[in-house]
Amino acid sequence: MATIAVDAMGGDKAPVPEVEGALKAAREFGHSVVLVGDSESVRRELEKQGYARDLPIEVVHASERITMDDHAAKAARGKKGSSMHLCARLVADGKADGFISAGNTGACMAIAKMILGKVPGVDRPALSGVFPTMKGTPVVVLDVGANVDCEPQMIAQFALMGEIYSRCVLKVTRPRVGLLSIGEEEHKGNALTRDSTPLLKDLGVEFIGNVEGRDLFSGLADVIVCDGFVGNVALKLSEGLVEMIRSMLRESLESSLAGKIGYALSRSAYADFKKRLDYSEIGGAPLLGVKGVCIICHGRSDGHAIKNAIRSAAEYASSNMNQRIEEELREFAQAG
Amino acid sequence: MATIAVDAMGGDKAPVPEVEGALKAAREFGHSVVLVGDSESVRRELEKQGYARDLPIEVVHASERITMDDHAAKAARGKKGSSMHLCARLVADGKADGFISAGNTGACMAIAKMILGKVPGVDRPALSGVFPTMKGTPVVVLDVGANVDCEPQMIAQFALMGEIYSRCVLKVTRPRVGLLSIGEEEHKGNALTRDSTPLLKDLGVEFIGNVEGRDLFSGLADVIVCDGFVGNVALKLSEGLVEMIRSMLRESLESSLAGKIGYALSRSAYADFKKRLDYSEIGGAPLLGVKGVCIICHGRSDGHAIKNAIRSAAEYASSNMNQRIEEELREFAQAG
Repeated sequence: MATIAVDAMGGDKAPVPEVEGALKAAREFGHSVVLVGDSESVRRELEKQGYARDLPIEVVHASERITMDDHAAKAARGKKGSSMHLCARLVADGKADGFISAGNTGACMAIAKMILGKVPGVDRPALSGVFPTMKGTPVVVLDVGANVDCEPQMIAQFALMGEIYSRCVLKVTRPRVGLLSIGEEEHKGNALTRDSTPLLKDLGVEFIGNVEGRDLFSGLADVIVCDGFVGNVALKLSEGLVEMIRSMLRESLESSLAGKIGYALSRSAYADFKKRLDYSEIGGAPLLGVKGVCIICHGRSDGHAIKNAIRSAAEYASSNMNQRIEEELREFAQAG
Repeated sequence: MATIAVDAMGGDKAPVPEVEGALKAAREFGHSVVLVGDSESVRRELEKQGYARDLPIEVVHASERITMDDHAAKAARGKKGSSMHLCARLVADGKADGFISAGNTGACMAIAKMILGKVPGVDRPALSGVFPTMKGTPVVVLDVGANVDCEPQMIAQFALMGEIYSRCVLKVTRPRVGLLSIGEEEHKGNALTRDSTPLLKDLGVEFIGNVEGRDLFSGLADVIVCDGFVGNVALKLSEGLVEMIRSMLRESLESSLAGKIGYALSRSAYADFKKRLDYSEIGGAPLLGVKGVCIICHGRSDGHAIKNAIRSAAEYASSNMNQRIEEELREFAQAG
């Protein structure tokens, strides 16, 4: 069983979902959890949620907290006593196998890179979205916001890291890797995609060429690589669109009596539908390429999402994938 | 009433939806329609769909057809007798006020630029998606695929053209213009968005700064500008996601008897929901910046979408907006 540090002061409703997720992960999976944050409020919340002393949960006090309004780089350099810093330190010192945070994404990436460092050979760690698809297996999309204005070499490294994550952590046998572009043909795209294509072909992964926006969630590819600007726009667009569709559907159903009855009758179908679309089933976005395990969760994560992020962090930690990244990048560099 | 040329050989099921849309537009709006394509099959389809001789519909024969598999630039240079070429010629010669096509988007853009030319002052015409939003008023997103690897000057021109379209054609009083980026703060984004911001501020439009992917359909902005690569990924992602959500919902509802009954009871709510999400209510994407009116429709457009595209083309043609683009670009160039 793994030990995962949880930033208890990260999310919008911290420490409530963090404590809930920690309790669930400890009970359901037997993982040890270190809750890092204001110890008084964390302990109070633990008592409130019925913490039993035999559960493998520990509390570590942090005197500072990074908020969503903090400037990422400044918070990383300045707030050294923050719960986020302490989480990363626990991993760097070998006291935890990984950490998760639902806090300020920019600050979390900066702190992870600063304290954990990079896997040898990695130029730029990549934030990697993991999403449900039509086919059932999740797709790994990277980068979704850590790096804008990428070079082809970075895209190739993203492909390698994403492929290893899909293979070693998500257990996909031979992950198909696609390049997000604006047409299936090789010549279609921008300067970055055209220059990345030859590198991706030489990578030794199952490269399936360009994929389009519509294929993001179709299950056509198991790993999709792109510049962090494009990936972040795509990620936030998807979130916004899912919310908009849900609220439009609810409005339409609520505007008539038949609709309301219909909705009541099909409640379990909606629950099933919601679950299939729900990113919280996966829990968070791993920051691939840092030495150690760091998973960044949505600020609005509930206890279920936190629990699943802890599970993902534990699976990631036990996979040895950082060592594989190092080895495969070395082979690629020697071959190139 | 306007005269609109319709490429009758464009869409995936041509000429069926084209003929249907032409008949509807002629009947409902009184617009004259010139159907351009293989005259024999167009006439046969007109008879089949109950064409009445008093309707203002004309057929012009085209000996060639551009398919979805044709290379855009080659088809534009080579297939001079195609229905797409002839449509553009009718506009250039003043015999039609605008044209629409549901055919090969790349070829259509190339032909429109070649035959119609550009509005003086426009560097690069932009394909402009028009989408429904949560608030009801449609949003204009440009560029969605005509120009990848944009310069800041191009983004500024897109903003000006989109703002004029929103104001003059969609009748939005003071359109708010947003720049698609990955954070609300000005410094967040990539090199292109950062360099475009000062130009957008000086444009004299209601520039509201950066908007994120989640705001695309929220109604926060009336016009959203971006590089054509990002815009095209966003457009296709949205299409794919809407389809995926619909099919997941259907599957969930069909998996139980209660769900099926619920679905049957709420049928009108679903019809309303579908209509609100339906791009075909708007009809097509105008190619802004060409001298004349060109609207490009989805290859899968049905008769309803074609009808609405004819209506949009007529509204565009009667708006004098190309003259405004020319004037406002001149003012901007003199001020800059």
